[in-house]
Amino acid sequence: MQPSLIAANIQCPILSQAKLETREFLVERSRIRRMERGEGIFLHQTPARSCFVVMNGWVKLYRILDSGDEAVLRMHTRGEAFAFADVLRRGDHQYGADAASECLLLEIPADALRQVLNDDPAFGAILLSHSFEQIDALSDQIEALKCQSGIQRVAAFLRYHARPKGNHLFVTLPYEKVLMAAYLGIKPESLSRALAKLRQHGVVAVDGGLEITDQGALDELIASRAVERRMAAR
Amino acid sequence: MQPSLIAANIQCPILSQAKLETREFLVERSRIRRMERGEGIFLHQTPARSCFVVMNGWVKLYRILDSGDEAVLRMHTRGEAFAFADVLRRGDHQYGADAASECLLLEIPADALRQVLNDDPAFGAILLSHSFEQIDALSDQIEALKCQSGIQRVAAFLRYHARPKGNHLFVTLPYEKVLMAAYLGIKPESLSRALAKLRQHGVVAVDGGLEITDQGALDELIASRAVERRMAAR
Repeated sequence: MQPSLIAANIQCPILSQAKLETREFLVERSRIRRMERGEGIFLHQTPARSCFVVMNGWVKLYRILDSGDEAVLRMHTRGEAFAFADVLRRGDHQYGADAASECLLLEIPADALRQVLNDDPAFGAILLSHSFEQIDALSDQIEALKCQSGIQRVAAFLRYHARPKGNHLFVTLPYEKVLMAAYLGIKPESLSRALAKLRQHGVVAVDGGLEITDQGALDELIASRAVERRMAAR
Repeated sequence: MQPSLIAANIQCPILSQAKLETREFLVERSRIRRMERGEGIFLHQTPARSCFVVMNGWVKLYRILDSGDEAVLRMHTRGEAFAFADVLRRGDHQYGADAASECLLLEIPADALRQVLNDDPAFGAILLSHSFEQIDALSDQIEALKCQSGIQRVAAFLRYHARPKGNHLFVTLPYEKVLMAAYLGIKPESLSRALAKLRQHGVVAVDGGLEITDQGALDELIASRAVERRMAAR
């Protein structure tokens, strides 16, 4: 087995919970795909022939509306799975998928997934639990879109992606600002204004990213009543 | 079996797909609950002891934020199920649920659901497919929140709930306007403004509801680029 396939085995919560036989069956039939930033993985409303696990980098799930606007539905990163539902329903993809950064994917063919689901009922339970987690994540996103102002959503996004570095928290923006704005449901110019304004709430721009110098101030902003709801508009 | 339990059997997509034995087992252990508008079904972060199917009326799933704002996550109506994930994870409810109108619920105890999932693997596949539908519905909602202006969301909501009556489409608002505004992620006053403005797009107020006199005009508004994004702000 390729070393990268072994890594997929460990990193993916769906595979790592499955019994050894099931895991081997799936991984032996899968292949690793290396994608450049912006490369298309599949298009909305095309037949679903494979499903994917992100091993590294970021993937954007999106739809193009009749109006021409692009709705960014989700951003997936390491260990997360997508297109399993489309494959199991034997239908078309419910969204398009692009590489949002350089990324590494495990591509599982539809036949292999269906076969496993047939042979191993426990794998069905793993998928059910994974789909419950997706429902939670989508509900959280709806909660934020309905009840938080634009600047609060930006603040919560930074908080979520912050990692300790020395005495402070540090955020490397996971993908470009235009995409971050689309994901948060604000205009790119609102994102720039929000980032500038966040200086008053303990976030400063430093080399290579942003530093959270006052976590308390940032948390206070996130939990406060959304007084500046105008920013929530795109 | 009570006649209302037989009805539940037919109306619920989860039950109606299950094999006879499974259906009988679940329905015999369930009870019918009649709720008044505004009555609480369960609270967020309380132990999940039952799951529910809506037989009639409307149920609101919501969360209260630290800021005190209420986020309306979903509105469920006839045939739709909720709290299945919470019960299967043996955890707390991920949201609160209230009766949004007078309603009739089928309450299935946690033990009965877990037993069935153990005894009948096909029932797991039914639940998986139901959870995929929920993911679709949540994705649609995110798409609308990110890419449609307030008035477009109101228009799409009316279109979704419109039923033919004579030569026109007619909408009885399914629940009160304050709740409709919260569900759509706009302020109640923005909803009133949007409804007034929709007169120019083929929607007129009539006794007992709204009439869509020009479906083409309404569809055109829904598909147009969101120029009035300011209305999307709460």
